Amino acid sequence: MTANTDVPSKESDLPIALDAVGGDHAPGEIIEGAVQAHQESGVPVALVGPRDLLLRELARIDAGDLPIELVEAPHKIEMDEAPVQAVRHKRNSSIVVGMDLVKNGRASGFVSAGNSGAIMAASVLRLGRSAETDRPALASVFPTIAGECLILDVGASTDCKVEDLVRFAVMGSVYCQHVMMTPNPRIGLLSNGEEKSKGNSIVQQTHGRLASSNLNFIGNIEGKDIPFGKADVIVADGFVGNVALKTAEGVAEFAFKLLRDEVERASLLTKIGGLLLMPNLRRIKRRFDYDEYGAALLLGVDGIVLIAHGRSKAKAIKNSLIRAYSAVEFGVLSHIKAGSDQMVRSSSIPVSG
Amino acid sequence: MTANTDVPSKESDLPIALDAVGGDHAPGEIIEGAVQAHQESGVPVALVGPRDLLLRELARIDAGDLPIELVEAPHKIEMDEAPVQAVRHKRNSSIVVGMDLVKNGRASGFVSAGNSGAIMAASVLRLGRSAETDRPALASVFPTIAGECLILDVGASTDCKVEDLVRFAVMGSVYCQHVMMTPNPRIGLLSNGEEKSKGNSIVQQTHGRLASSNLNFIGNIEGKDIPFGKADVIVADGFVGNVALKTAEGVAEFAFKLLRDEVERASLLTKIGGLLLMPNLRRIKRRFDYDEYGAALLLGVDGIVLIAHGRSKAKAIKNSLIRAYSAVEFGVLSHIKAGSDQMVRSSSIPVSG
Repeated sequence: MTANTDVPSKESDLPIALDAVGGDHAPGEIIEGAVQAHQESGVPVALVGPRDLLLRELARIDAGDLPIELVEAPHKIEMDEAPVQAVRHKRNSSIVVGMDLVKNGRASGFVSAGNSGAIMAASVLRLGRSAETDRPALASVFPTIAGECLILDVGASTDCKVEDLVRFAVMGSVYCQHVMMTPNPRIGLLSNGEEKSKGNSIVQQTHGRLASSNLNFIGNIEGKDIPFGKADVIVADGFVGNVALKTAEGVAEFAFKLLRDEVERASLLTKIGGLLLMPNLRRIKRRFDYDEYGAALLLGVDGIVLIAHGRSKAKAIKNSLIRAYSAVEFGVLSHIKAGSDQMVRSSSIPVSG
Repeated sequence: MTANTDVPSKESDLPIALDAVGGDHAPGEIIEGAVQAHQESGVPVALVGPRDLLLRELARIDAGDLPIELVEAPHKIEMDEAPVQAVRHKRNSSIVVGMDLVKNGRASGFVSAGNSGAIMAASVLRLGRSAETDRPALASVFPTIAGECLILDVGASTDCKVEDLVRFAVMGSVYCQHVMMTPNPRIGLLSNGEEKSKGNSIVQQTHGRLASSNLNFIGNIEGKDIPFGKADVIVADGFVGNVALKTAEGVAEFAFKLLRDEVERASLLTKIGGLLLMPNLRRIKRRFDYDEYGAALLLGVDGIVLIAHGRSKAKAIKNSLIRAYSAVEFGVLSHIKAGSDQMVRSSSIPVSG
């Protein structure tokens, strides 16, 4: 059975809760994104925030009549607040109220571009960890020559044990197979060399565990291999994964900036060259654009939670809502549970003749 | 006293030993690089390898008459050999013979594009660790919008303690000041967020130590900040530093490949645009080119050792030799010793009124 023949679960009738006040461009761009996701892709959305503000913003963009649910949350967790304290004390904040909609079965997932530490803390404190893992992992999609790959963890859990990395591999494999539609995903372990002897001590031990698992483990992969599509799922702890992802973002931005600077200070002829190439450059730039990819999915908690970039505009929010809705539709959580159970069975029950 | 007014030490009369048989393009490109470094910059070089081969190659490029010393080393450590065993057993290999030239005061430094694990093992086993540190760090130069920065460690020591990272910061600061000529270098700690609470536990503790040191510590920096020149020296353990450096290499290569592909399959007009922009694109590509930067310097061993990229061609070898010679001329080892002593003094002796 492949994922796309799955009958959508009952859950997909529920809305995706969206934090309307989180992110640099809230509430305008966030609400605009919700409207786009609803109109273009039929994603049911519940906006969470101060009701007056929501009504005013919807009226402003002529979307007051759309069947978008509004859920009152008068408070907001600011970007610089200490996550755990904020989640404990601001019970009426959009992040906590949104998360509780998922917890109480009134929403099928939650999307926010707000304080990412607070979103993670609220996920663990309100939804709880899933039975399969001790530590959550943030899974982000990255562009490659072949299309895209999934990197996890990109920042949820910075000190990981071998067991955590193995679970990240399982969760990533399941997500890649059932949502990204990659059959038998190739799992790579991010390291400082291809040989199995490379890596810090945790990575070296993880290599051994993955090699004897039932995953399609292709061994260590190096940072330079990431964009060349060598693996479909790249496993790292949240510290290393975050550094790799952000370094990639920075270098891509840097390369385009250099190009722009060159064209700007160039001769007329070169400027014409730049102009002629512009559509192609834009197409390349789009491949590195997080707006296209939407948010990162938090795996390992008992619900669908997506953390969008703080800088998200309408398009990124729209794509995040679509991604959340796909994760619900394809039953990611139950697939992860089944995948983990299978992994546990195959590694703990000895083969008998 | 600034570095460029230093009187060159006696050491700079000694040659830099060069492994003539290490690297993908050995011996041809390696020997060509030695000749260029000698002719263009007056770097004294001692070629290490099988004497017959060296004579034949020098004759082939009409450089038989140059005053380049030849040192016999009949054997070679292959790229896939286990480093420590190879160094212990192949006493007549170019890497061990070259390192012993430094140890015995017959060369002032050693450059090799061979098996990097073996070069590091030979550095520690033949030269020994410097008194200032337990673990060596490989320091690599990276292009930034402002010029360049130094990242260390990029692969020598994968499991580091707080103390190691602090020593990397000291060594990097000294190197940046005295060889890269950056006054009062800004030291950044590579982490998954700017706040001091970010990082894995080792990085969090290191933050505290660096903040109370006499270094110009500017706090955590993220992967995306690396190319934008936010710090002059970026401190990381060898695992994370390697992943960051190689990810950056990969993404830059990927961006240029996408651009080339776009131009190739484009309309005639776009092709003309690409042609007009070509000199600019080449100039950008050169900024990411390791050929321009030469090799990474191994800090924390008792001698000047540079590890060049396995893919190094003549130009990379030439630049590596020049870099090694500068490190000798500017007395990097004694500056590191002095800088470390000062650091130890300032942190262990309480201020009294």
